[in-house]
Amino acid sequence: MERIIIDMDEVIADPMGEMIEWYRKEHGGDVDWDKMLVGSWVKGFPEQHQSLVMDRIVSPGFFRHLPVMEDSIEVLREMNERYEIFIVSAAMEFPNSLKDKYDWLMDHFPFFTWKQIVLCGSKDLVFGDHMIDDHVKNLKGFKGKQHLFTAAHNLEITGYDRINNWKEARELFLK
Amino acid sequence: MERIIIDMDEVIADPMGEMIEWYRKEHGGDVDWDKMLVGSWVKGFPEQHQSLVMDRIVSPGFFRHLPVMEDSIEVLREMNERYEIFIVSAAMEFPNSLKDKYDWLMDHFPFFTWKQIVLCGSKDLVFGDHMIDDHVKNLKGFKGKQHLFTAAHNLEITGYDRINNWKEARELFLK
Repeated sequence: MERIIIDMDEVIADPMGEMIEWYRKEHGGDVDWDKMLVGSWVKGFPEQHQSLVMDRIVSPGFFRHLPVMEDSIEVLREMNERYEIFIVSAAMEFPNSLKDKYDWLMDHFPFFTWKQIVLCGSKDLVFGDHMIDDHVKNLKGFKGKQHLFTAAHNLEITGYDRINNWKEARELFLK
Repeated sequence: MERIIIDMDEVIADPMGEMIEWYRKEHGGDVDWDKMLVGSWVKGFPEQHQSLVMDRIVSPGFFRHLPVMEDSIEVLREMNERYEIFIVSAAMEFPNSLKDKYDWLMDHFPFFTWKQIVLCGSKDLVFGDHMIDDHVKNLKGFKGKQHLFTAAHNLEITGYDRINNWKEARELFLK
């Protein structure tokens, strides 16, 4: 059974979408999509408000109530029958997120068990057949097949095979 | 630089020692060392009290205040200069332990960064040159050199090279 390593944020969870919605409501402002292209969606917020955004990311509860990426539940439920799936999130930079991420996963993806979850600092030490991730820093050391999951902050990156959404993942892994 | 993957409980942290001390104080009883030899120190407690022990393990705070294994700080501080060290704990079964384990590590082993910490369910997907662990279930799928760290629950296991304590680890890795 092939092993697929799947990221959380911007792949199955949508912290950027949640933050943009909050920002519009609370501050009436919008993000600058071009400024994210340096690889971090936080950079899309006006500079004077980026510390507010970071404060919110590191606070308990933020990762507990994120929207789920479209189609990810249905597709992963089926992939989970055919592949060895691990959800691997580089969450250790945000220690308040650890329990939130566990609870969120168990809530929305109840077909996964705790044995399939990894919360780490670096993804350098995991191995498998496929990795699906929105960050090149996570993909580039991976020995298996690398799939860049499209996100607003990685649109200008070239040289990687992309998965643009979970419908495409279904085509790739479930046909 | 060789990569060494190091477990937490019964290797650098001492939940069994803490629990035995608590049990003696609270219940005036003692453990049966022979009964642990099935691979779990929880089995060493009288059957009627094992649910109390488990309740304590799963409650927030338990893993935050554990004793540190003798010599582990000094030896790991030095090993951290010469090897790529990852602390990998199969903590996901106890989601309340996640933040506690992070805080405990940062408190006692401040020379590690968050990039070196992995909290997972299964250790099947990590790779490296050495793994030091007290559980055969974690070691047996590991492709690198397997080191069984001696604990009360694994005394009868044969067929593995052992590290009995951190003085021995120093001899092995720092000579």
